[in-house]
Amino acid sequence: MLETPRGTRAGESIPPGDFGKRIIDLARRLARFSETPDALTCTYFSPAHKAVAAELRNQMQAAGMTAAVDAVGNVVGHYPSAAATAKTFLIGSHDDTVANAGAFDGRLGILTGLVAIEFLHRAGRRLPFHLDLIAFAEEEGVRFSAPYLGSAVVAGRFDDSLLTRTDAAGVTLGQLLEDHNIDLAAIRGLGRAADTLCGYLEVHIEQGPVLLERNLPVGIVSAIAGSARFRVAVRGTAGHAGTVPMRLRHDAAAAAAEMILAVERRCATGGALVGTVGQVAVPHGLINVIAGRCEFSLDIRAGDDATRDAAIADISAAISQIAGRRGVTAEIAEIGRHAAVPCAATMQSALARSIARAGVEPFHLPSGAGHDAVMFAGLTEIGMLFVRCGNGGISHSPLETVTEADADLAARIVLDLLANLA
Amino acid sequence: MLETPRGTRAGESIPPGDFGKRIIDLARRLARFSETPDALTCTYFSPAHKAVAAELRNQMQAAGMTAAVDAVGNVVGHYPSAAATAKTFLIGSHDDTVANAGAFDGRLGILTGLVAIEFLHRAGRRLPFHLDLIAFAEEEGVRFSAPYLGSAVVAGRFDDSLLTRTDAAGVTLGQLLEDHNIDLAAIRGLGRAADTLCGYLEVHIEQGPVLLERNLPVGIVSAIAGSARFRVAVRGTAGHAGTVPMRLRHDAAAAAAEMILAVERRCATGGALVGTVGQVAVPHGLINVIAGRCEFSLDIRAGDDATRDAAIADISAAISQIAGRRGVTAEIAEIGRHAAVPCAATMQSALARSIARAGVEPFHLPSGAGHDAVMFAGLTEIGMLFVRCGNGGISHSPLETVTEADADLAARIVLDLLANLA
Repeated sequence: MLETPRGTRAGESIPPGDFGKRIIDLARRLARFSETPDALTCTYFSPAHKAVAAELRNQMQAAGMTAAVDAVGNVVGHYPSAAATAKTFLIGSHDDTVANAGAFDGRLGILTGLVAIEFLHRAGRRLPFHLDLIAFAEEEGVRFSAPYLGSAVVAGRFDDSLLTRTDAAGVTLGQLLEDHNIDLAAIRGLGRAADTLCGYLEVHIEQGPVLLERNLPVGIVSAIAGSARFRVAVRGTAGHAGTVPMRLRHDAAAAAAEMILAVERRCATGGALVGTVGQVAVPHGLINVIAGRCEFSLDIRAGDDATRDAAIADISAAISQIAGRRGVTAEIAEIGRHAAVPCAATMQSALARSIARAGVEPFHLPSGAGHDAVMFAGLTEIGMLFVRCGNGGISHSPLETVTEADADLAARIVLDLLANLA
Repeated sequence: MLETPRGTRAGESIPPGDFGKRIIDLARRLARFSETPDALTCTYFSPAHKAVAAELRNQMQAAGMTAAVDAVGNVVGHYPSAAATAKTFLIGSHDDTVANAGAFDGRLGILTGLVAIEFLHRAGRRLPFHLDLIAFAEEEGVRFSAPYLGSAVVAGRFDDSLLTRTDAAGVTLGQLLEDHNIDLAAIRGLGRAADTLCGYLEVHIEQGPVLLERNLPVGIVSAIAGSARFRVAVRGTAGHAGTVPMRLRHDAAAAAAEMILAVERRCATGGALVGTVGQVAVPHGLINVIAGRCEFSLDIRAGDDATRDAAIADISAAISQIAGRRGVTAEIAEIGRHAAVPCAATMQSALARSIARAGVEPFHLPSGAGHDAVMFAGLTEIGMLFVRCGNGGISHSPLETVTEADADLAARIVLDLLANLA
């Protein structure tokens, strides 16, 4: 029912690159709304975030959608099917950012959907399903240390326990909603029923270097990795840096160093397994005192839960073994564990076909980061398209980049997918 | 000229243990003066510190010395020789403490000298040299980040550049002295001339486990270790903990961990070499972000400078090699280097003979920590007697202990030494 942009019907083909330029321009325009003067920071319900939502609503309306900001702050654009009783296909991603962010994390997915629907609208095309484009208000979890707030609401998974979470200023989410005269019932009413949906697609930057290294503009997400997070506290014996011979030491920092390398070694065994120690500290450490205590964080992810759990078991054993040999203790406290979420096989195949039709090799990779798509797994068939990042794959940084050509290709693949889903 | 306490002259022998009990009791009494309610903290010119000085002055006077607090805050007790033109033998140690200190660091040396002179006084004995017992006001360097203030003044090494050092409240040392109406000329006038001195002895707790492990109550310090301190800043590439494959990472924390283990390995090659990484931090580290930066401190000490410098060279090379292999950079900034200070051979021999006469095996060991004795090297012959610590050798901690028996033995050795120097 839909001709793709590469089609030949008069007046309907568009020059390559136009989607890309428009996406990049819009992302740069949204990045101007920020809480910080010299960097992009746009967290939930800040003035900058509200301005972004208003801008997106206007852009969606100009692109032919009916659009509004919902109770929780999501911007929802609706591009109706010709068939009023049709199901709805969702295209979603988030419009909030981390502190000192890049312009494309989250926003690329919204804007790719926007230009695709704009194309359909200009071409006067309707699909056999409704198309809802949703800019989720909160995915990063910066403000309330709870990610996926916007998508959780739409997926009917809003958790009332979040209402007591506080932000840095001590304001609870419940208070914030009340201050905005937002009725909790209205939020709960935003949840979509499974039988009204026919799929969920999220386009997102890879936030890693895999596609860049393989010289591929896009990739198909096989699964969103399962993760587990821990805090490890090593307790040794403090002592004078000059007076305790090396062989009599129980140095918490040296023990932690050996444990950190054990994490690295175990997680380098291949596949999509990764292990990260992002925080290390000797509390109240002094230059001339042997560390009596050293603490570090541990984040382990894998494309499947069995791989992750086997790594956790081995790392725990290695930490215990190192602690025992060195005469220190190590306490491992788990602070979160999430199962891997596979993307739907049907969506992966459909994306692969669209990618192949664009002349690109279909390549599947797991997502190490979490995404809004996670919230929709189990509710409808989810699919994710990764777009290559420049600068070594850096993200959550002003150095985050996407090329016009890659953004353009992503929009064409989305249109091809929609045409073929139809 | 002097009979030792083991002598048999009527009225002059003392029961074993009396010196020890008196030393421990006095140390516990001094420990009651503190800036903090539940711990011992006694830093330069605090009210607690002034109270300790007044108490020590009173104790010195009661023990038969003329005693006064000098311009810089040292308590100086004078036990004159029968010969007015005699030279002066110094017994010194410090009365200030670190925060949350033990009762014996510094004070043991003052109190050992005190009970020895008290014995001489009660026995009516004079030596062929004057005996000055000095409680140095500032050795730990806690308040102005500059150690040896008290002993530097007496050794004529006071450095005017210290006057601009500030404490935690922003008060300079110069201001502090002015507030106490202390004339700088008076401080400079406290310096002793080399030709007035005939030796310096310092008794100090070992602050380490070597004597405890060898089951020896005392040891002879061979040298005060040379030290060098560095700050190492490792810069890698920050990245998302879930999206960057292990083999593509340039993780600053993992690189630092490998470097910390290289320090440990190189310094475990034996002898009196020690290397300590007491501070480790990933600045602004996040649990889900690969460390882009990791900083650690490095403190390297050895009984001789050649050993220390060889270790520094090897460690620097190892750090560079690790950084190069991992694609990170490591900047090593030296923040201080002090030469090893040998104790005088004559004093070491004299101490060895006194120890042997007490029925104990003379054992020589380097001091990994710095001591006031360092200030007197080059000015007169220095000697140091270490006394065993309990609790694994812990110091700078409330767990610091010395037994009555060991303190008693130390006082007897000091008296024997004085007798035989005479």
